[in-house]
Amino acid sequence: MMRVALINTGTELLLGDVHDAHLAFIAREIFPLGLRIGERRTVPDGEAIRSALTDLFLRCEILFVTGGLGPTSDDVTRDIVADLLGLELQRDSELLASLKDRLKERRIRWTSSIARQADVPAGAQILPNKSGSASGLYLKPNINPQIASPHIFVLPGPSRELQPMVHVSVMPILHSIVQTRAGIERRLYKIVGIGESTVEELIGEKVLAIPGIELGYCARPGEVDVRIVGESDALTRADAVIKNALGLSIFSVSDETLEELIVKLLTKRNATLAISESCTGGLLAHRITNVPGASNVCVAGYVCYANEAKINMLDVDPDLIAKHGAVSELVARMMADGARGHARSTYAVATTGIAGPTGDSPDKPVGTVYIALASSNETTAKKLFFPSDRETFKQLTAQAAFDLLRRKLIEDQ
Amino acid sequence: MMRVALINTGTELLLGDVHDAHLAFIAREIFPLGLRIGERRTVPDGEAIRSALTDLFLRCEILFVTGGLGPTSDDVTRDIVADLLGLELQRDSELLASLKDRLKERRIRWTSSIARQADVPAGAQILPNKSGSASGLYLKPNINPQIASPHIFVLPGPSRELQPMVHVSVMPILHSIVQTRAGIERRLYKIVGIGESTVEELIGEKVLAIPGIELGYCARPGEVDVRIVGESDALTRADAVIKNALGLSIFSVSDETLEELIVKLLTKRNATLAISESCTGGLLAHRITNVPGASNVCVAGYVCYANEAKINMLDVDPDLIAKHGAVSELVARMMADGARGHARSTYAVATTGIAGPTGDSPDKPVGTVYIALASSNETTAKKLFFPSDRETFKQLTAQAAFDLLRRKLIEDQ
Repeated sequence: MMRVALINTGTELLLGDVHDAHLAFIAREIFPLGLRIGERRTVPDGEAIRSALTDLFLRCEILFVTGGLGPTSDDVTRDIVADLLGLELQRDSELLASLKDRLKERRIRWTSSIARQADVPAGAQILPNKSGSASGLYLKPNINPQIASPHIFVLPGPSRELQPMVHVSVMPILHSIVQTRAGIERRLYKIVGIGESTVEELIGEKVLAIPGIELGYCARPGEVDVRIVGESDALTRADAVIKNALGLSIFSVSDETLEELIVKLLTKRNATLAISESCTGGLLAHRITNVPGASNVCVAGYVCYANEAKINMLDVDPDLIAKHGAVSELVARMMADGARGHARSTYAVATTGIAGPTGDSPDKPVGTVYIALASSNETTAKKLFFPSDRETFKQLTAQAAFDLLRRKLIEDQ
Repeated sequence: MMRVALINTGTELLLGDVHDAHLAFIAREIFPLGLRIGERRTVPDGEAIRSALTDLFLRCEILFVTGGLGPTSDDVTRDIVADLLGLELQRDSELLASLKDRLKERRIRWTSSIARQADVPAGAQILPNKSGSASGLYLKPNINPQIASPHIFVLPGPSRELQPMVHVSVMPILHSIVQTRAGIERRLYKIVGIGESTVEELIGEKVLAIPGIELGYCARPGEVDVRIVGESDALTRADAVIKNALGLSIFSVSDETLEELIVKLLTKRNATLAISESCTGGLLAHRITNVPGASNVCVAGYVCYANEAKINMLDVDPDLIAKHGAVSELVARMMADGARGHARSTYAVATTGIAGPTGDSPDKPVGTVYIALASSNETTAKKLFFPSDRETFKQLTAQAAFDLLRRKLIEDQ
């Protein structure tokens, strides 16, 4: 497999002021070609890029370098690449003319430093930039026969310039370089309701026993992603193992989120949802309404932290709250029923629990939570326990509530 | 200045599946100590971490390593660090017991692979993890006298585990390492309601004209952080310039969030809040309820995406919706008034807007939003325009609504 590396240059990245999106973008673009980034380095503007380049020239066959192509004094990527490869910088007259046109059009004053953007290392291919003034560069391997070097793509720093350049200019060159390796594919499984170590126990050994399979896990609160990479035959075998072991715990084999799936399932069934939240405090509604089209299915959300709100908004019986406590199975059920009744929705989910750090009691420690689901034929409830910090508690509870609804939606299919 | 490097491990990062937030987080945390990350490397799970560590041992005085501390087979950071430094891994019985307790408490089944998380390289300091099972490690320089090595902090991959560990355990160690440069201080200003370039225009030149001041900006949706670093006298002068230019737009000079400030102000005034959200879909309630103690002041939240919900939950007049549209100043006002009336709260905020990608019209393009605030003496509303993606739109609207409330709370003092 060809080794790929990426160098991101930019002091602002290392100060934490700018979030770098290039790694994720390039990784996904090149994945279908069977290429993976094996290493990424982030270095400040200026000379630091020199040692990163020197190191990586010998450690990869394809090298991406981003940033440092602008007109200011700290933009030195072009110069360092040319210098390291012993290539003369030549001012490209066509590029110079188009730069001048561009600035005139935008009524930006010409300064002599801008002309540097028309300098091209001898023999390099210019990658046009439709969205900015900094052209990219492609330098073929050993472009200077006396110096060993990989395929080098030098790309501008801003995403809105880099991304179209990758689509239009870089991908066609990569296609011709790579001669796509037949058969290497990737599959993703998104799992809810069981933890990472349990997932590994259920599938790890069996999947890794299949020759040629690479297996990876990634855990988030209430969710585990499993990734397998390999040739088609091996993938088919691994897929069977994973689906057999994890079954309904797999909620998606694509990139969709749990909330996207729920909006899709509700839309497909022409069903609507009401949400009543005590301890999740609006998180369920927030996540659902992040999905475009949510307004058609999520008809109402009740955030009823206070007992009065549970009573006034959802007709929860105050005597029951007094008797069983607000964090109880009965109150969760009444919240779900109340929300479904008031909103006249097909389904309603409810959450009530103790997020902490206060509000606990000996028999209801921080992390105690009840979730409930009301539908036309039944109301179900579940007690769970997520002792953790406040935000993780909310996320875990949201995952569990969505999962309860998802399983019901599948059942009602 | 001490050189700092960061290694992020995780195949999921290089595949583009997970967005890495550690660089930005750590960079901001260590900034006040006068430390900056000089280089960051991202490497896949497994043996690749070895060469990155070897390289960087000699190129920095402080090294952070994130990820690869979990219980699964691809979590090998602990082993490789121990191996490279020639340190024996010793199973820590106290850690093992607390791991077992943790799992028992959470009713997660014990698997033998979890025990690896209790392995500690001889002589390393354990950094407790309050939010997960993977402890962090601190290894002092040249911990094995025969091998040159920097200060090494080995931290867990998930942000919700890494971030509290940095606050609680890493920063105190760094403080003692760095012996804060005498007289150099840092101030932070959190600004809402104006953009980064406007902030820079208002203060940039004047602040940088003060000798010995370092100035930095950091922008998030609807919020700009301004950082100044310098000696006490210079800071006092810069502080006056900034406060004079930005005035009430500065909502905090500490690390508190806008929602923390609002809960604090409401609590202080013995006031309560109701929230009614159309386009923000629960985000306001979610953010407020992330603050411990929110349950005492945030009495009710209404998520009323659908017109029927606005009518049923908040008594918005259906004729007015028909005449003016759900996204209108009048409807925003009625939502705020309705929420305040139903919840019998001191204040109520409301949002209604077009998050997109659909739902727009020629006179109300995607990004149009109205926010309203009801109180005992008046109801005010504001039209804003945030053309952006759905999630950014929600964040910008939430910031604007919180800011409207904040200014009212200051006024009502």
